[in-house]
Amino acid sequence: MELLDGKKLSHQIKEEIKKAVAMRIEKGLKIPHLAAVLVGNDGASLTYVGSKVRSCEQVGFKSTLIRLEDSISENALLLKIKELNNDMTLDGYIVQLPLPKHIDDEKILLAIHPKKDVDGFHPANFGRMALEMESFIPATPFGIMEIFKRYQLDISGKHCVVIGRSHIVGRPISILMSQKGQIGNATVTLAHSRTKGLEKLTQKADIIVSALGIPNFLKGDMVKEGVIIIDVGITRVVDKNHPKGYVIKGDVDFKDVSRKSSYITPVPGGVGPMTIAMLLKNTLLSCERNTN
Amino acid sequence: MELLDGKKLSHQIKEEIKKAVAMRIEKGLKIPHLAAVLVGNDGASLTYVGSKVRSCEQVGFKSTLIRLEDSISENALLLKIKELNNDMTLDGYIVQLPLPKHIDDEKILLAIHPKKDVDGFHPANFGRMALEMESFIPATPFGIMEIFKRYQLDISGKHCVVIGRSHIVGRPISILMSQKGQIGNATVTLAHSRTKGLEKLTQKADIIVSALGIPNFLKGDMVKEGVIIIDVGITRVVDKNHPKGYVIKGDVDFKDVSRKSSYITPVPGGVGPMTIAMLLKNTLLSCERNTN
Repeated sequence: MELLDGKKLSHQIKEEIKKAVAMRIEKGLKIPHLAAVLVGNDGASLTYVGSKVRSCEQVGFKSTLIRLEDSISENALLLKIKELNNDMTLDGYIVQLPLPKHIDDEKILLAIHPKKDVDGFHPANFGRMALEMESFIPATPFGIMEIFKRYQLDISGKHCVVIGRSHIVGRPISILMSQKGQIGNATVTLAHSRTKGLEKLTQKADIIVSALGIPNFLKGDMVKEGVIIIDVGITRVVDKNHPKGYVIKGDVDFKDVSRKSSYITPVPGGVGPMTIAMLLKNTLLSCERNTN
Repeated sequence: MELLDGKKLSHQIKEEIKKAVAMRIEKGLKIPHLAAVLVGNDGASLTYVGSKVRSCEQVGFKSTLIRLEDSISENALLLKIKELNNDMTLDGYIVQLPLPKHIDDEKILLAIHPKKDVDGFHPANFGRMALEMESFIPATPFGIMEIFKRYQLDISGKHCVVIGRSHIVGRPISILMSQKGQIGNATVTLAHSRTKGLEKLTQKADIIVSALGIPNFLKGDMVKEGVIIIDVGITRVVDKNHPKGYVIKGDVDFKDVSRKSSYITPVPGGVGPMTIAMLLKNTLLSCERNTN
């Protein structure tokens, strides 16, 4: 069993991005600039956004945190979005979800200019990705593809079961893995809450990508010997013995499954850290596309 | 074995559209208007476009055929597209493919305004479809979903194998069938040219959608008893005994497979006629979205 060390990989990627920024500075080119919009004071959101901003600093990006009151109207937020779309100093920005209930997520998402949508959530980017055109790929599936690439895992012709059909993980990774290209050509089955006989599917899979959000769901007897496991689950589970009061659990019963797997991502330290690295990568790509 | 009679269904749908148009006329509302752009003189393209125009007439739509010389420059075609985008009398238009080699298909496709893209090929529509927003669904997968709906075939939780990952059939139908919704929730495996052990997959499938383009590819020993078969193949095979000099063949060895299937689409008369009906449906939807 070999660990797919997302933490290590994300450091490597960040180092590469840092070098690319240094090179740009040397050449007198624009420094990538990412903004994050945070509405309200949700604890988890604050943590995520904070970590994104810190990562920007690590690689030498300019970053801007825009904090808005919980009570902001939808129209006022849309005006802010318009302002960010027109801000030529910005290469990309993200709007941290969830938004307050009185705001329509979809309306906000659609207002983001696709060329600044470094989260890759806008349908124009999603469609371009699915139709194999240049786009921003959502950070989590982008990170998973990068793990395959950097560990030189050959997924071509392999049978992959993706568990979960979310718009930001399950659906896009199922598309990416089955496309043509250097990393791709897998035969992908997309399983979900309505799937019958999931175990029979996972037991035959060469690769399993689990993006379900149920801690320790995938057990050893559900997988075959030599399987490659990508665990996208990050559920906070209460743990009074832990200083934070919770621990992060993946979808995979690591101890049980890792005995049979050839490669496996740990949680934490697997897919999670890759997500931020790929958000930075998208921001760099945007800057390069805009100014090179 | 029951035949999934696309010819009959498409007549029904056209009748419904015809009634909707008559109702619109009665209410003094706009008559749906579809335009088709045909560049050059390709025989098959002429047949397809001709049949689309005739179908418009059948249901009472206004239709416009725009024929352009093979030698038209890319820029001139782009100007034409711009003109069509701005033509408020048009609810939608299609650009018949293939285009001459000196014209970049992708550039033309991207120039079509998504709100007039009744073929549903623009990435903005594709992305909206994949993210479950209101969109134009490409006519062939839309037609297949309509077959499931009108024959009340319950695909929820069923295992479906889609063969072929094209942007206009395999990829979108694999997405649509696995989405939530009244018709959906299937567990879909997308197979393609790089898939290993295809037979083992098809032998277990409850539903097979074949969009491969290889005549008589799917044989009886590749499917299980009771399978539902959707044959999207329409390959012209030379046949000197036929007045046209060719016959249309599907991907499925009909005689062999139909002995085991519970439901099966014939070729011709299955998915083919549904495609034109759904193009008309998209045009009507566009007209309703614009003017109601």
